[in-house]
Amino acid sequence: MCGIFGIDGDPGMEEAAAKMAYLGLYALQHRGQESTGIVSWDGSQLHLKRGMGEVADIFKQEDLARLPGYRAAGHTRYSTAGSSAVTNAQPIVVKTSMGPLAIIHNGNLVNDRRLRSDLEADGSIFQTTSDTEVILHLMARNPRADVVESLMTALARVQGAYSLLLVSSQGLIAARDPNGFRPLAIGRQEGTGAACFASETCAFDLLGAVLERELEPGEVVVSRGGELESYRLPVVPEPSRCAFEHVYFARPDSNIFGREVAAARKMMGAALARSAPVPADVVVPVPDSGVFAALGYARESGLPFEFGLIRNHYVGRTFIQPGQSIRDFSVKVKLNPVRGLIEGRRVILLDDSIVRGTTSRKIVRIVREAGAREVHMRISSPPTAYPCHYGINTPRREELIASAHDVEAICEHIGADSLAYLSLDEVLSSLGGAKESYCAACWSGSYPLRVDARNSAQQELFPIRSADDPGL
Amino acid sequence: MCGIFGIDGDPGMEEAAAKMAYLGLYALQHRGQESTGIVSWDGSQLHLKRGMGEVADIFKQEDLARLPGYRAAGHTRYSTAGSSAVTNAQPIVVKTSMGPLAIIHNGNLVNDRRLRSDLEADGSIFQTTSDTEVILHLMARNPRADVVESLMTALARVQGAYSLLLVSSQGLIAARDPNGFRPLAIGRQEGTGAACFASETCAFDLLGAVLERELEPGEVVVSRGGELESYRLPVVPEPSRCAFEHVYFARPDSNIFGREVAAARKMMGAALARSAPVPADVVVPVPDSGVFAALGYARESGLPFEFGLIRNHYVGRTFIQPGQSIRDFSVKVKLNPVRGLIEGRRVILLDDSIVRGTTSRKIVRIVREAGAREVHMRISSPPTAYPCHYGINTPRREELIASAHDVEAICEHIGADSLAYLSLDEVLSSLGGAKESYCAACWSGSYPLRVDARNSAQQELFPIRSADDPGL
Amino acid sequence: MCGIFGIDGDPGMEEAAAKMAYLGLYALQHRGQESTGIVSWDGSQLHLKRGMGEVADIFKQEDLARLPGYRAAGHTRYSTAGSSAVTNAQPIVVKTSMGPLAIIHNGNLVNDRRLRSDLEADGSIFQTTSDTEVILHLMARNPRADVVESLMTALARVQGAYSLLLVSSQGLIAARDPNGFRPLAIGRQEGTGAACFASETCAFDLLGAVLERELEPGEVVVSRGGELESYRLPVVPEPSRCAFEHVYFARPDSNIFGREVAAARKMMGAALARSAPVPADVVVPVPDSGVFAALGYARESGLPFEFGLIRNHYVGRTFIQPGQSIRDFSVKVKLNPVRGLIEGRRVILLDDSIVRGTTSRKIVRIVREAGAREVHMRISSPPTAYPCHYGINTPRREELIASAHDVEAICEHIGADSLAYLSLDEVLSSLGGAKESYCAACWSGSYPLRVDARNSAQQELFPIRSADDPGL
Amino acid sequence: MCGIFGIDGDPGMEEAAAKMAYLGLYALQHRGQESTGIVSWDGSQLHLKRGMGEVADIFKQEDLARLPGYRAAGHTRYSTAGSSAVTNAQPIVVKTSMGPLAIIHNGNLVNDRRLRSDLEADGSIFQTTSDTEVILHLMARNPRADVVESLMTALARVQGAYSLLLVSSQGLIAARDPNGFRPLAIGRQEGTGAACFASETCAFDLLGAVLERELEPGEVVVSRGGELESYRLPVVPEPSRCAFEHVYFARPDSNIFGREVAAARKMMGAALARSAPVPADVVVPVPDSGVFAALGYARESGLPFEFGLIRNHYVGRTFIQPGQSIRDFSVKVKLNPVRGLIEGRRVILLDDSIVRGTTSRKIVRIVREAGAREVHMRISSPPTAYPCHYGINTPRREELIASAHDVEAICEHIGADSLAYLSLDEVLSSLGGAKESYCAACWSGSYPLRVDARNSAQQELFPIRSADDPGL
Repeated sequence: MCGIFGIDGDPGMEEAAAKMAYLGLYALQHRGQESTGIVSWDGSQLHLKRGMGEVADIFKQEDLARLPGYRAAGHTRYSTAGSSAVTNAQPIVVKTSMGPLAIIHNGNLVNDRRLRSDLEADGSIFQTTSDTEVILHLMARNPRADVVESLMTALARVQGAYSLLLVSSQGLIAARDPNGFRPLAIGRQEGTGAACFASETCAFDLLGAVLERELEPGEVVVSRGGELESYRLPVVPEPSRCAFEHVYFARPDSNIFGREVAAARKMMGAALARSAPVPADVVVPVPDSGVFAALGYARESGLPFEFGLIRNHYVGRTFIQPGQSIRDFSVKVKLNPVRGLIEGRRVILLDDSIVRGTTSRKIVRIVREAGAREVHMRISSPPTAYPCHYGINTPRREELIASAHDVEAICEHIGADSLAYLSLDEVLSSLGGAKESYCAACWSGSYPLRVDARNSAQQELFPIRSADDPGL
Repeated sequence: MCGIFGIDGDPGMEEAAAKMAYLGLYALQHRGQESTGIVSWDGSQLHLKRGMGEVADIFKQEDLARLPGYRAAGHTRYSTAGSSAVTNAQPIVVKTSMGPLAIIHNGNLVNDRRLRSDLEADGSIFQTTSDTEVILHLMARNPRADVVESLMTALARVQGAYSLLLVSSQGLIAARDPNGFRPLAIGRQEGTGAACFASETCAFDLLGAVLERELEPGEVVVSRGGELESYRLPVVPEPSRCAFEHVYFARPDSNIFGREVAAARKMMGAALARSAPVPADVVVPVPDSGVFAALGYARESGLPFEFGLIRNHYVGRTFIQPGQSIRDFSVKVKLNPVRGLIEGRRVILLDDSIVRGTTSRKIVRIVREAGAREVHMRISSPPTAYPCHYGINTPRREELIASAHDVEAICEHIGADSLAYLSLDEVLSSLGGAKESYCAACWSGSYPLRVDARNSAQQELFPIRSADDPGL
Repeated sequence: MCGIFGIDGDPGMEEAAAKMAYLGLYALQHRGQESTGIVSWDGSQLHLKRGMGEVADIFKQEDLARLPGYRAAGHTRYSTAGSSAVTNAQPIVVKTSMGPLAIIHNGNLVNDRRLRSDLEADGSIFQTTSDTEVILHLMARNPRADVVESLMTALARVQGAYSLLLVSSQGLIAARDPNGFRPLAIGRQEGTGAACFASETCAFDLLGAVLERELEPGEVVVSRGGELESYRLPVVPEPSRCAFEHVYFARPDSNIFGREVAAARKMMGAALARSAPVPADVVVPVPDSGVFAALGYARESGLPFEFGLIRNHYVGRTFIQPGQSIRDFSVKVKLNPVRGLIEGRRVILLDDSIVRGTTSRKIVRIVREAGAREVHMRISSPPTAYPCHYGINTPRREELIASAHDVEAICEHIGADSLAYLSLDEVLSSLGGAKESYCAACWSGSYPLRVDARNSAQQELFPIRSADDPGL
Repeated sequence: MCGIFGIDGDPGMEEAAAKMAYLGLYALQHRGQESTGIVSWDGSQLHLKRGMGEVADIFKQEDLARLPGYRAAGHTRYSTAGSSAVTNAQPIVVKTSMGPLAIIHNGNLVNDRRLRSDLEADGSIFQTTSDTEVILHLMARNPRADVVESLMTALARVQGAYSLLLVSSQGLIAARDPNGFRPLAIGRQEGTGAACFASETCAFDLLGAVLERELEPGEVVVSRGGELESYRLPVVPEPSRCAFEHVYFARPDSNIFGREVAAARKMMGAALARSAPVPADVVVPVPDSGVFAALGYARESGLPFEFGLIRNHYVGRTFIQPGQSIRDFSVKVKLNPVRGLIEGRRVILLDDSIVRGTTSRKIVRIVREAGAREVHMRISSPPTAYPCHYGINTPRREELIASAHDVEAICEHIGADSLAYLSLDEVLSSLGGAKESYCAACWSGSYPLRVDARNSAQQELFPIRSADDPGL
């Protein structure tokens, strides 16, 4: 998962674009903390700064001062395994015969390996192992006077989930794949009138922009000084919007696919209270993602909502495991029970999903050790039984506990007194819109887009290990 | 404010003490993020590491490996103005004729300036501007065969608020001032049987320790291999436990002065619902400190509790203000409203205190801009009208809005439709124990301990500015 | 200018290759201090580390440990203007359909801009502005089963001065351009039998290797486990070996083009004593480059040699100019006169060349201020009147004082009592071999290889400015 | 060994003092590269910056900007073993009842341990293990209205070798011990008229200052705005100026104890040619310290001087030893022979001293391997048989090869064909002045000042190990 943000204003707004991108990315920080980067265009050249870490740590005042211009875009990247081969931080910038281009991408292509092989056989040289770079090479091989045309030609060969931004001399271009897997919204900044693009609408609030609309699946929008023009990629019969964005990934104050996330989650919690009631004393969320569903559950069930688990937000990137002596350390370091709220009570624990089961098992144990009389786990989505091929960083199928175990077995594994999931139908009801317009592959296994054989193979892409120094 | 943690085990627990201190400090991170440090004793020498920043950033695996021993203590320090003169990071370590000593201190002395002058006139040379160092010099001037005796002689001359830890060859010594302003708890680690000392009990949970009891006001406890021995400083008639710890500072999962903080806050919220009801649609906390009071208020009033303000936890230390163009930026960067939960509603906002009034004013405005029909501010403590001299970092009297304005004027200033505070009596009722045993100076102005004239003068202490390099 | 070094041994010599490259580069440090890098091949992948700075600062023990393998090559780069656009540090590594390749290059191509344009028009994407990368793209576009063939096909299209090393799975390949502008020597390490390649033979000494021979102009040598095989590029009628290597650039303990540099310089100094004698008391070198010529001059003239100027070797990269108040500061910070050796004497100053004249002017002034009665400047090469297009970093023609001034005018400008240069013929006599086999373009203006029009244009190559963070 | 520099000007020269100190220290860099620091006084407070490393690396433009004032002093420190306990970098700054003081010290006290014990027993707390800090504590214990008086009272109790600078609000004070072991010169900057103090006169040249005179042994000079006033410590019958400064330590362009170092060394070389002639073909110095003696030897003997060993100046602080496979690596990495100048010749090697013998042994071997027919070692001082207690960092007696071996045995150990030293009498003749006015303890064993028993004991001073973070 990643967060992307772009802004394109009047050439008059000289210095501001990168600063606005900085704020937008900061609001999208929950979508990825591993690396971040911003590129700006000042009318004659691109300016780039990327770094490993969080937005507020990487960008200093002087960095933003070195990113002048009225057009900018940026990226926050989620930690993914196996990417240490070479730098995959975004934006990726290149020079082509159409001039300098910068690309930023949220999603996952499903046929990039084959395209990459073809391009390499033809003599293209890749800088990264990122699927994003494939799009740039396709564009470089098919230059057009109009960059949008070159991009659309490239996207016609590409399959997968993507919401992308392209910074060029000709404009800021936003594109969403024909399936519309990932969200991408258009906003307008009050005052400057600049056009904004963001993975989630919460990125608009801080900089005083308001949501205009989402890009349609398959839509390509180019902004030139804030003026928008729209193009369409060849259509698919039905979009496949990612339902998991609502369940877990997005911020509760964002509006995704036409509905506020907080509202959707509360509806899921309420539906869960109706479908899976249980005699209990308190409803306790697993913070932060379970909070709204727990509020919905509590209200619908009439049971008291309690903050029985406190989250510690100070976990740094290199938190040290102090030996093997502390049981459930990985969870305890983040969550601590409030004994007075749990002791002697029958607790309903609300969480958004169970992936491997190990974390849930630890949480249940912690809650029991704090004195809970009973622990009933309620999950505000169906069992996660299939990996995502469209940009969510789930483990392989065999690591997903629900891929091989039924609810009863999972309940036993995590040590709860009872366990219930929300049905797929109820999740989709909470989201609004046609139920067929959502991708629910991680729960149902019915994938809307086939993964190319080369991509499945997953062989090593880059036989080069680099440990370059700062400043290179 | 600061967080302190110490542990003293069997000489057998060789490597573990510093690691446990690391975990304890991590749990106390909310009490200070500016600097941190750990000192360990391995039976023959002290090992020290301090740094500017948060615990998880400063200490790496290799740092902890360089802090061997079975006795350790550490510190997290809150950012305080005017301290850039020279390093004031703790622990402070010195060599005396009694051997090496390390001191760690939470609180604020009220007569350290006079003591410092006297010592300097006598030829003592100070390394820091910290009041903590005064105690070490007093000890160095009055060495005893028994370090505890030397410490007690020194403390007899010192006045103020302190909870301190002293690491020496003779044991880990904990001391709490006779007024008992700041909390200091004794715990026992299961398994190792090591003795622990911490500002708050939440520090015990992560490392599997359980609360034994708090130190009494004026008590000095020495641990030698986990065996405790207790001494007493000359008594005062009545302790003065800091009520503000419960209102704002402590973590909700801590037990302070005999009561769990979450419970106390919920009681304050409920009392506020009884004393200051208002027709409304939702109760919304200002996160994180207002959450439990809001839950109490909502339950007592029967109004729905809603997470209408989302807190962004990714604010780094150097977050950049992007020009003056964004109104209320300093608050918006931390809090974002969930429009769907606020729009068209009459909102009760719950917060723990109003200091200068500027933040509250911005929050009210943000909530109004998100569409609230009415905004009623409720504060779970009395008006903060007097500065704290005992360790809480409040601004000077003239900056406290309640020092010169009545409730009506404050309400107007922050732009709320109504404003109500909780009475002092109701706050103290929620804390348990004798009401006279608490310090409420910040609300009442009645200070239990007089500040020495030299300390009030506040002249510059150290005419030296240092910018030494890493590694010195 | 740059220094290059490569080594290729038996797959048995597992860990050693990068360490040997480190030593080789260290000995070549005088050829460039701006950046350095080493790449190694371990039989299955390339390992890379580059950094800004000197060899001994960039590579730590752990860095070399992360560069395993029996084949390695490295680079030290001289600071050149205009290269901050994007990283140009070498080695450059890429993945092609022939596998991973790393290239290292000393020299300067004269038709790379045109080739780059053609490649870009065809869809190639460049990572750097370095001419070196062009060769890799030409290879990627013309892959062959045999990497040597692919390289030779690429080199057939390339014109200019180069000595290069290519690390591939198929071997370590060394190539020298058909004109043979830059030196490149083959050595053999005693003990391991590994093949070595270096810009100068001084790189062999430290690691116990001995000179076998130089590569011939236009020769391509591939080492596979130390076994050498030789290929030839299309010949040119006459080589053009860089005479300036002997005059200034190479280390005195190196053997270049068949003659030890120290010997050549002493011959030049002696020739200068014969052709430009002057009554004087002492011969003083401008250290370090003028030392051997001064020894030759002193011996031939019978005048005493004196170290009248002391060089300070501690000048860091960011030495601060402390205001404008100190005249001749830029020279004084490096050179200090020994007053006792100069005062009251007639001094012959020996230097290798005069470029802009500003430094010589300052040196003459410093020597006069130290009390010299007369200052006679003697230069051990002809006037530098033309820029180099083949890899020496000379300023543009209009900045070269000898391009527009005769010897008398230069003498007046630098403030010497007399000035004399060594004739071109005498320089070439000192070097040995056929006089026509040397490039003397910087003195004569007769360029052996024409610069392509596109290269002369010198427009901006890369409209992207990057300030990426460490670790990317 | 250390280098010290101070400057005190008119309060008008606002910004310049630290910059001048920077230049002065840079010129003294050869006296110590481990750490450096500068302190400045701006009329109301001290400003300090210290760092590990060389002057040009530690001080950036912005650092000097943060050291305002018209009075400044600095230090470069030589790496000494055993000092990693706590920071010993200088200047040491403290606040006393006389105001802030900064001290800088070159030398070595011989009774500081006893003084330190007494002070600690009295309750003083030390920050460092440095003998320098003792002087500050003695001053703090005996404050006077006049800082000079306080310093002189302190120095009356101190014994040893020192040249020190004290920065105070009352002036810049320079002091030289009554024995006058270490040099300390007074200069006057042209233009500003500021007073300067430096270990060596080469520090004056770069900043346009000229030598006025040396401080007398036992003299204390205070500068107030450049006006000098002189005081005297109780006298000793005869000074003991360090002869080794001339032989090895000082820069050849410095004037020490009234004679230029280059001249003294040339005289030593010439004397050695007369006293220890040998049939040979060339005279080759071990660079850099042997160069001038070699010139003197060559001229006196009529033999040709040749730079047969080239020194590589790029050795960083952490140069890596690449395995044990390369014989004589530690020397080879610094010195490389010029084969053409050595091969087939009878070589006289000139060096300043032999300490352990291991380096000389390696150098002789390298020269033989380069083809020398004979190698005759000539040393421009007597055998170093006794350790220095007055500030030169020599190894313990048992490590000095001359402490237990006669010349013949040493010659055999280092593998030379012959070996000869210069006699003590001839060394002292080359220095000028009364021969009794020099300390020659390292050669003669007759120590002018007895070392206190406590100092000889050398027990561990500080049972605290610190690894504090940057910025503390």
